Amino acid sequence: MRMTVRIAVAGASGYAGGELLRLLLGHPDIEIGALTANSSAGDKLLKHQPHLLPLADRDLQDTTVETLKGHDVVFLALPHGHSAALAEQLGDDTVVIDCGADHRLTSADDWKRWYGGEHAGTWPYGLPELPNGRDALVGARRVAVPGCYPTVSSLALAPAVDLIEDEVVIVAVSGTSGAGKSLKTNLLGSEVMGSASAYGVGGAHRHTPEITQNLTAAAGRPIKVSFTPVLAPMSRGILATCTAALKDTAAHVREAYEKAYADEPFVHLLPEGLWPTTNAVLGSNAVQLQVTVDSDLGRLVVVAAVDNLAKGTAGAAVQCMNLALGLPETTGLSTVGVAP
Amino acid sequence: MRMTVRIAVAGASGYAGGELLRLLLGHPDIEIGALTANSSAGDKLLKHQPHLLPLADRDLQDTTVETLKGHDVVFLALPHGHSAALAEQLGDDTVVIDCGADHRLTSADDWKRWYGGEHAGTWPYGLPELPNGRDALVGARRVAVPGCYPTVSSLALAPAVDLIEDEVVIVAVSGTSGAGKSLKTNLLGSEVMGSASAYGVGGAHRHTPEITQNLTAAAGRPIKVSFTPVLAPMSRGILATCTAALKDTAAHVREAYEKAYADEPFVHLLPEGLWPTTNAVLGSNAVQLQVTVDSDLGRLVVVAAVDNLAKGTAGAAVQCMNLALGLPETTGLSTVGVAP
Amino acid sequence: MRMTVRIAVAGASGYAGGELLRLLLGHPDIEIGALTANSSAGDKLLKHQPHLLPLADRDLQDTTVETLKGHDVVFLALPHGHSAALAEQLGDDTVVIDCGADHRLTSADDWKRWYGGEHAGTWPYGLPELPNGRDALVGARRVAVPGCYPTVSSLALAPAVDLIEDEVVIVAVSGTSGAGKSLKTNLLGSEVMGSASAYGVGGAHRHTPEITQNLTAAAGRPIKVSFTPVLAPMSRGILATCTAALKDTAAHVREAYEKAYADEPFVHLLPEGLWPTTNAVLGSNAVQLQVTVDSDLGRLVVVAAVDNLAKGTAGAAVQCMNLALGLPETTGLSTVGVAP
Amino acid sequence: MRMTVRIAVAGASGYAGGELLRLLLGHPDIEIGALTANSSAGDKLLKHQPHLLPLADRDLQDTTVETLKGHDVVFLALPHGHSAALAEQLGDDTVVIDCGADHRLTSADDWKRWYGGEHAGTWPYGLPELPNGRDALVGARRVAVPGCYPTVSSLALAPAVDLIEDEVVIVAVSGTSGAGKSLKTNLLGSEVMGSASAYGVGGAHRHTPEITQNLTAAAGRPIKVSFTPVLAPMSRGILATCTAALKDTAAHVREAYEKAYADEPFVHLLPEGLWPTTNAVLGSNAVQLQVTVDSDLGRLVVVAAVDNLAKGTAGAAVQCMNLALGLPETTGLSTVGVAP
Repeated sequence: MRMTVRIAVAGASGYAGGELLRLLLGHPDIEIGALTANSSAGDKLLKHQPHLLPLADRDLQDTTVETLKGHDVVFLALPHGHSAALAEQLGDDTVVIDCGADHRLTSADDWKRWYGGEHAGTWPYGLPELPNGRDALVGARRVAVPGCYPTVSSLALAPAVDLIEDEVVIVAVSGTSGAGKSLKTNLLGSEVMGSASAYGVGGAHRHTPEITQNLTAAAGRPIKVSFTPVLAPMSRGILATCTAALKDTAAHVREAYEKAYADEPFVHLLPEGLWPTTNAVLGSNAVQLQVTVDSDLGRLVVVAAVDNLAKGTAGAAVQCMNLALGLPETTGLSTVGVAP
Repeated sequence: MRMTVRIAVAGASGYAGGELLRLLLGHPDIEIGALTANSSAGDKLLKHQPHLLPLADRDLQDTTVETLKGHDVVFLALPHGHSAALAEQLGDDTVVIDCGADHRLTSADDWKRWYGGEHAGTWPYGLPELPNGRDALVGARRVAVPGCYPTVSSLALAPAVDLIEDEVVIVAVSGTSGAGKSLKTNLLGSEVMGSASAYGVGGAHRHTPEITQNLTAAAGRPIKVSFTPVLAPMSRGILATCTAALKDTAAHVREAYEKAYADEPFVHLLPEGLWPTTNAVLGSNAVQLQVTVDSDLGRLVVVAAVDNLAKGTAGAAVQCMNLALGLPETTGLSTVGVAP
Repeated sequence: MRMTVRIAVAGASGYAGGELLRLLLGHPDIEIGALTANSSAGDKLLKHQPHLLPLADRDLQDTTVETLKGHDVVFLALPHGHSAALAEQLGDDTVVIDCGADHRLTSADDWKRWYGGEHAGTWPYGLPELPNGRDALVGARRVAVPGCYPTVSSLALAPAVDLIEDEVVIVAVSGTSGAGKSLKTNLLGSEVMGSASAYGVGGAHRHTPEITQNLTAAAGRPIKVSFTPVLAPMSRGILATCTAALKDTAAHVREAYEKAYADEPFVHLLPEGLWPTTNAVLGSNAVQLQVTVDSDLGRLVVVAAVDNLAKGTAGAAVQCMNLALGLPETTGLSTVGVAP
Repeated sequence: MRMTVRIAVAGASGYAGGELLRLLLGHPDIEIGALTANSSAGDKLLKHQPHLLPLADRDLQDTTVETLKGHDVVFLALPHGHSAALAEQLGDDTVVIDCGADHRLTSADDWKRWYGGEHAGTWPYGLPELPNGRDALVGARRVAVPGCYPTVSSLALAPAVDLIEDEVVIVAVSGTSGAGKSLKTNLLGSEVMGSASAYGVGGAHRHTPEITQNLTAAAGRPIKVSFTPVLAPMSRGILATCTAALKDTAAHVREAYEKAYADEPFVHLLPEGLWPTTNAVLGSNAVQLQVTVDSDLGRLVVVAAVDNLAKGTAGAAVQCMNLALGLPETTGLSTVGVAP
């Protein structure tokens, strides 16, 4: 006999919310409860998520505590600043999994600098594949799902922190869904198709302190992060190129990665000679990695691919829900991508 | 206790073969056996299907009877002309499901005209949603999986055959994966991105007689088909615009579609006001339809979306396998697309 | 000695305005004067048109008569309903070329039905390649630039109007720039990439009466038009598939097209065996055509490609300006596309 | 009265050859002579370059000295290893502009390591915007056109070489046309659309020594280059993200770029707040740059966009031809992109 977990999704009209529902529809233990939205409340879900046919008759409700309470798990896919108040009112009977940024940073100063305003507190960080990352998530009542760039960047570099110097350079090419359904000119199809562009250049992207926090924690010493995101003409996927000077060019780099991820179900070091592509992880919870050393420079180069909406957001949320509830960690998740 | 069905895939290095494996990895009753290829035999599967991580260690073998025999089900994803001989040697103990064209046409003359050479015979046609389409598939030992364009075109028009005149016009916009991994200049990314082009114009595409066969059978009278495929810059998906003059402009068109597909798990008439998009069916076994009447012309217009690799090929193959084996028809299949 | 023509562009921040400026920058007789916008007035042009480096220092002004007057030619790239009042105030000293819809339709009833409100009157129609189309444009003081779909559809079928029955079916695949910079969810890159969708189905698109008007005029009898536009994942380009039953299947179709376009500098019937692609006309003023007959059905099939922003809008506007001013018709225009 | 320069293009069926012809068709001083190919010799050019309508009747000839001699300028767009022998036989009466790699490297050892075989010698390097880069090109009889990645990377970093430490990290996102029309599975539209992938990782790309050579020459000291190219789903364009540690974080970085490119017609430092996009330079000879300093790290970040086929190859070739012949450097070239 299986237990049934009743869940709600706040922000069900957006991309992260849609991806959560897509995954949860394939999860054997889940009953989908309330679906809420902001300006789209009152609409049928299908108008905003035409790919979710099994939920075609569902209505979007207002995002209120009244609508969300009474579920075993509530997923929040909201703009930042909304989760703390909701979580408090929902109480500890409800597991709250926040896909937003509010509770990821451990430093209130960092929060203030990068997001402004008062820090709402730190929740267990939903990246179980980091060193000791799983401990805080088992049985957790609150989870802060990582940002998409920090997920792929941290997993790409964490196994090497003892082997590298203190500064890393990351350039991550991303699909446009990471920006959500925001109506901005630069996100129009006519603008993004056929074009690549960088944004948040010079350390200005809000995911920078989160990557720094993860790598610094993994290293046990300050790691400095140069991070540049690049928008590419694709809906989904991030391909991160991560480099750092090696302390010792003879370091056994590959072994470090093999060891770090040998037992991880979702992080996959590719066989030598194969390099990650984002379409190979599309729709899946997998991270694909390859590593090499530029021997002329004594520099480590790691390339990693992730689906920003799946393992980068909603898949991580489901994975963390499984850990929080004591379900097998991989339930409802897959390492099979949709390609080509 | 569940039975386990052992399957093999011939042509596992191509797009149809990859999609079969993607779906079968999610099918609870399947054990994946031999995987064969032609020029790629000897390679690791992962080299050709990097999205299929659970099969990372599998080898591609030669496509021979010896390799394929002993499985409960053999899927053939081969160029045309190869299935008859293989099927004969495999014998009736093995269910053979052919994703190729060899056994779709009922007329040997049609075969000769469109493909050349001797017709290899007709197999039960794998489109259960056609009128009486399911009967021949339950318990079948051989199945001819329909072409991708015939699937979407036939489902788009079959419910209306009694309401329309004898000539239909279909223009179907398709992604490039329908052409397979063939190394042709016009299929290069540099050529297809940012560009649309028609091909097989003027009734020259081989799927034309198959659509004609289906609609003629559904109507019980000859239906003439003007069919033009258009290549668009996307990997997957077909959007078919299908029009025909109505005999009576007051015909209850919508009711005909509602009735035809009320109990179909995979064919979905959208609520009025919503129109199909191919990304809403990406990776799923769903067909999304919308219908309207151009009242100035007394003309029916149906728009239908399908994933050419899923319901258009591999999903149909799995659906037919389920019917052939007496499994629930929807096992391992989904109407949930991967969007955006 | 060359004369210099001083021009202004109203709506310079949008896609049509940007394309006008791109072409006019390459026109040897043009001096670019006032550039106006609506909500972007006050911005530097470069913010909205980063590809127009030679105009990097230009400011966008308000769209008023005061700003626009005093130029030899004023191009209007505005939402419909604005051109009549502006044109009246500018007076006949100024050539006004309207890229909008206000003055295209000859029937006030059609205007009322399709756009609503009072018809602002009909201006010379800017498609010189139609039968007798050039006459009204030479020396004109007002020009209504055709819609992008009517341009390609009318040129695709006009040479055949005497050979076909009275009903035509057109399915036109278009890039997203035809929708302008409107901030709508369905135009976001995440929505359009990897996806095809139809809109305005069932004769609901406003270009339908314009195509009907053109073909009816060319035929000298009513022609009925079934028109379906399909959005494809590309920024520019329209590929129109146009079919109609032939009165006589032995008609000399190719000859009709060869004769119609033998002396046209921008409309090009491709050699037999080659079919149009939109990237071959990208950025150019060319229309590429190919024709065939589906002999099983006795049906003409014409495929035509155009760049919706160039010959479909801004290129036509420049061509008409040349005719209006007595300049060589092809000045500043090209049949060379930007491919791949 | 203008002189007319008669040119030939060897490799006219490929992407670089097509772009050369596109640009040369717009050059007022050029008469297009022989067009040659390898396996496509005997075909009409239009079959391979359907966007070049003014050359629709031209035939592709064999690539031989006999065909190429007697022209004022011969452009070579050939695989590496072919230009030296051809150039020798053509003699010094003919200006030879090589779009291939044969004569770019100054070190025979580098050539041997990266390309293998005997070095064919060094020709004047066709990047006039490098320090003193123009001198050797004025009146040159032989020009080695730079690689596309070296063009954008070198221009992005050369103005800063005195301000930075000795190691730079470059990640360059590129469209697929840089790989030419090669028939490789990973270049198929189905593979590249919706996907990003790195290649030549770890210092393995052949453009690495060329970038190193340029920056080392500009700096007057060895500069080490970590270079990773990333393939993105677009036909054209490179966006390079280039970073390096600053010697002094208070360095006047912007001023260095303003000074370096103040008089350059094709290299454009954008106003503060605007960042380059590849579609803004599509089809143009412009390089768009923006610079910033990551003050947390004391690191320079430069982002630069170029059209790999235009300024990255064929535009540079035309620019160098102009310099070689004493024509105004910008003749036939433009800083106006084709966008959106």
